[in-house]
Amino acid sequence: MKKIYKGNVVFTKNIGELTSFENGYLVVENGKINSVYKILPKEYEEYEIIDFKDKLLVPGFVDIHLHAPQINNLGLGADLELLNWLEKYTFPEEAKYKDLDYTEKSYKALVNKLWENGTTSSVIFGSIFKKSNILLSKMISQSGLKAYVGKVNMDRNSPDYYIEDTEQSLIDTEDFIGEVSKIKNIKPIITPRFVPSCSKELMYGLGELAEKYDLKIQSHLSENIDEVKWVRELHPDCKNYIDVYEKYNLLRKNKVVMAHCVWSNKEETKKIKDYNITVAHAPVSNGNLASGIAPIPSYRENKINVGLCSDLSGGHEIFLGKVIKEAETFGKLRRIEDNKKYNYMTTLDYFYMATKGSGKFFGNVGSFEKGYDADFLVIDDSNIQDVNERNLEERLKRFIYLGNSGNISERYINGEKIEKPF
Amino acid sequence: MKKIYKGNVVFTKNIGELTSFENGYLVVENGKINSVYKILPKEYEEYEIIDFKDKLLVPGFVDIHLHAPQINNLGLGADLELLNWLEKYTFPEEAKYKDLDYTEKSYKALVNKLWENGTTSSVIFGSIFKKSNILLSKMISQSGLKAYVGKVNMDRNSPDYYIEDTEQSLIDTEDFIGEVSKIKNIKPIITPRFVPSCSKELMYGLGELAEKYDLKIQSHLSENIDEVKWVRELHPDCKNYIDVYEKYNLLRKNKVVMAHCVWSNKEETKKIKDYNITVAHAPVSNGNLASGIAPIPSYRENKINVGLCSDLSGGHEIFLGKVIKEAETFGKLRRIEDNKKYNYMTTLDYFYMATKGSGKFFGNVGSFEKGYDADFLVIDDSNIQDVNERNLEERLKRFIYLGNSGNISERYINGEKIEKPF
Repeated sequence: MKKIYKGNVVFTKNIGELTSFENGYLVVENGKINSVYKILPKEYEEYEIIDFKDKLLVPGFVDIHLHAPQINNLGLGADLELLNWLEKYTFPEEAKYKDLDYTEKSYKALVNKLWENGTTSSVIFGSIFKKSNILLSKMISQSGLKAYVGKVNMDRNSPDYYIEDTEQSLIDTEDFIGEVSKIKNIKPIITPRFVPSCSKELMYGLGELAEKYDLKIQSHLSENIDEVKWVRELHPDCKNYIDVYEKYNLLRKNKVVMAHCVWSNKEETKKIKDYNITVAHAPVSNGNLASGIAPIPSYRENKINVGLCSDLSGGHEIFLGKVIKEAETFGKLRRIEDNKKYNYMTTLDYFYMATKGSGKFFGNVGSFEKGYDADFLVIDDSNIQDVNERNLEERLKRFIYLGNSGNISERYINGEKIEKPF
Repeated sequence: MKKIYKGNVVFTKNIGELTSFENGYLVVENGKINSVYKILPKEYEEYEIIDFKDKLLVPGFVDIHLHAPQINNLGLGADLELLNWLEKYTFPEEAKYKDLDYTEKSYKALVNKLWENGTTSSVIFGSIFKKSNILLSKMISQSGLKAYVGKVNMDRNSPDYYIEDTEQSLIDTEDFIGEVSKIKNIKPIITPRFVPSCSKELMYGLGELAEKYDLKIQSHLSENIDEVKWVRELHPDCKNYIDVYEKYNLLRKNKVVMAHCVWSNKEETKKIKDYNITVAHAPVSNGNLASGIAPIPSYRENKINVGLCSDLSGGHEIFLGKVIKEAETFGKLRRIEDNKKYNYMTTLDYFYMATKGSGKFFGNVGSFEKGYDADFLVIDDSNIQDVNERNLEERLKRFIYLGNSGNISERYINGEKIEKPF
C-alpha cells in the first residue's frame, strides 16, 4: 500500500549533513519509506497526496534512555548529585509502582507526554515490579508508539523497601520477557540498574538471559565521579567500570546501550568502541545532577555511535529539541575544556543523534532513507517565524531552539497517524 | 490607594532563601508593596480582595541585558563564536534598524515577547540609530513595561554599513538622552558596544556624558577568549579589559552593568567588586556562542552582585525561567571545574538573580519587601503538576524547570495589570 505525503522534508543521513526537499514528496509503502522526491514521478500521479503545505516533515524523535517510573518527579530534585538523589527522590518514587493504580494513572501522563513531544520510539527503564512493567508495555503498545522496555533489576545496596531477592529477580525478568515479547511494537530489554545495585550472581544471570533470548541490554556507565569510585571499591578486581559488565557477560556486541559515559577514560572508551556500544547522551540530566560534561566531541571523532536521551527524570526535558540544544551547548563547553582539540559540532550533528543516532538501536529508524520506518512528525513553525524569509535549515534549527511540543501538529508511525493516547 | 491580592506568594529576600506565604495576602499601596501577610489584619477587612486562588504570585522577571535589534535572529546563528557571529549575523541585522518601518514591526514582536514571558523590567541595548532607539523607548513605555534603553555607540572596527562618526555618535547620544528622559518608565543608559568597537575619543566622550547627566552605563566585559586577546592588542597600555573602561571614565561606582565576565581574572574581578559592578550573567548565550562558563560560584562568594539576562539573541530564551535553569547547570559545571571549591548553588540562588539580583539595578525592584515596586506575575501551574501534592518551593522550581510563558496568566506593574501591548 502506497501513501504520499507532501511538505518540507528535512532529515540527516549522515552526522552533520542535512538533506532537505522544499515542497518535497515522501513516498511510503507498507509503513516504510520508499523514496523522497523533489518532483513527483509520473507513476505516482494518480495516488492521493496528503499535503502538509508549508509545514516541515522530520523524522520522529528517538529517546534512547529514560526512566518511566520517575515521571512524577519531572522538574524536581535537581539539588543533589546522583547517589544522594537516588536515595532521597528516586527510589521512594519508583517504589510506588508496586501499586498498579498508581502505575496506570502515572503512565497515562507519561505516554501522553511522549506522544505530545514527538518521541515516536524510546528505550525505557521501568521499575523492579514485573506487573507494573507489563502494564507500561501494554499502554505504550496501545498508544502506537514503539519502545524497548526493561524490567529493572537491583538486589544490593538498595533500600529495604525497594530491593529484590536475586533468584526472584531473575524469575520475574524471564516472565517479563515472555509476556512482553507478545506485545506489538514493544521489545523487552535486559536492564541491570547499574553495577552498585546488582550482585555478581544477578549480573551473571541477566547475561545468561540475554544470551538465551538474544536480547539487547541497557544500563548506566560512568555517570558521576562518586559512582565511579564506588564501583572500583566494589570490584577491585576490575580495572574499569565497564570491565565489570564485561566480566559478567553483559556486553553483547552491537546490542548494548550505556547511559552517560561522562567519566569514561581511554581504556573504557576503547571498549565502548570495540563492543560497538551506543552511548546514550543525557546533557540535561548531566547538568541537573552535576555529573559533568561527556566527551562527545571525542566520541564522535572515534566514530562511537551516540544517541540522545531525556533521561527522565534526571533530565526534565522530554522534548528532544531542548536536549539537542543542550547537547550542542555541552559539546561547545567540552571543546573549550579539551583546548579545541576536536572539531566544532553544530545543531545538525545533534539532530542526527536524536533521530538516526538513537534510531539505529531500533534498526532502520530515524531517517527518510529507503527502507526506513515511516515514523515522522509534522511541524507547524508558524508561531516561531520572524519578519524575514528563512530557509529550511534555519527553520529546523529554530524549531529545535525555540519550538516545543505545541509546534508538532501530527505524528506518524509506520506511515499511520497516531492520536493522543489517553 | 490600597489594593489587596491573594494567592501563594513566593519570593527571595536574600540569595538562596525562599520566603513563601501559602494563601497569603500582598498589600499594595500606591504601586508599592506595603506588606505581605499570612493572615490579613483587621484594618484591611473592608478592602476588595483580588483572589488568585491557588495560583502563585512571584516578582516579575528582570532581564538585565538584551539586544533589542537582534530579535529577528532569535534561535539562529549559534554556529559561530562571538567575533565572527557579530560580523556574519548581528551587524547586518542591526543595520536594518535604520528603517523605522522595520523597527516598528520588529519591536512590536519584541515588546510582545517581553510581556508574554513576564519580563517586567529590562536593560536594553538598542542599535546605533537614534530615531529607532527613541521609537523603541516609546513602544516599551506604551506597553507599561519598564526599561533602561541605550543607544549603542561604535566608531571603529565595525563594517562600513554599520559604523558611526565619533562626533556624530556623541551628538546623537546626547539628543537621545534628552528625548528618552521625558518618556515614562524608560531611562536612558550610556552604551558603548564594547571596547573593540569604541575609539578612545568616543569612550572618553561617553564617560563625560554619563557624568553630565548622572547616567548608568552598560557594556560587555571578557565574554570570549579571542575578544579578550583583541582588547589587549588594541590597548597594550592597559593590564586588563576592565582597565580600558576605567581609563576612559566608564566605571561609575554602583552604576555599571557589565555583561558576561566569563574570563575575568583575579585583578579584573577585584575591580568588578570595588566598583560594585553588576555582572549580567548570560548562560544561554555563553553556551550558544561557545564563550565558556562564567565563574558565578566564585562571584557569589566574593559578594559580587549578579543579575540574569537573556542576552537576546546570543541567547534565545527570553523566558527567564529557562535562563535560571541554565545558570544553575552552568554553576554546577563550573563547580566541578573549580574542584568543588565553592558552595553548591541551587535554583533559589538563581531565581534571586533573575528577580532581586537584576532588580537592584532599578532600585527597589524584584522582591515583595516593603517599599518595593509591586511588579508581579500570576502563575497558573495547573498543567505542570503531577499526581502528588507539592509544596510551594517545589511548585516554584517546577515552574522554572517545566514552565513557559503559557503559565503566566497575568502581569502587574506598579500594582496595575498590563495587557498584551501589540
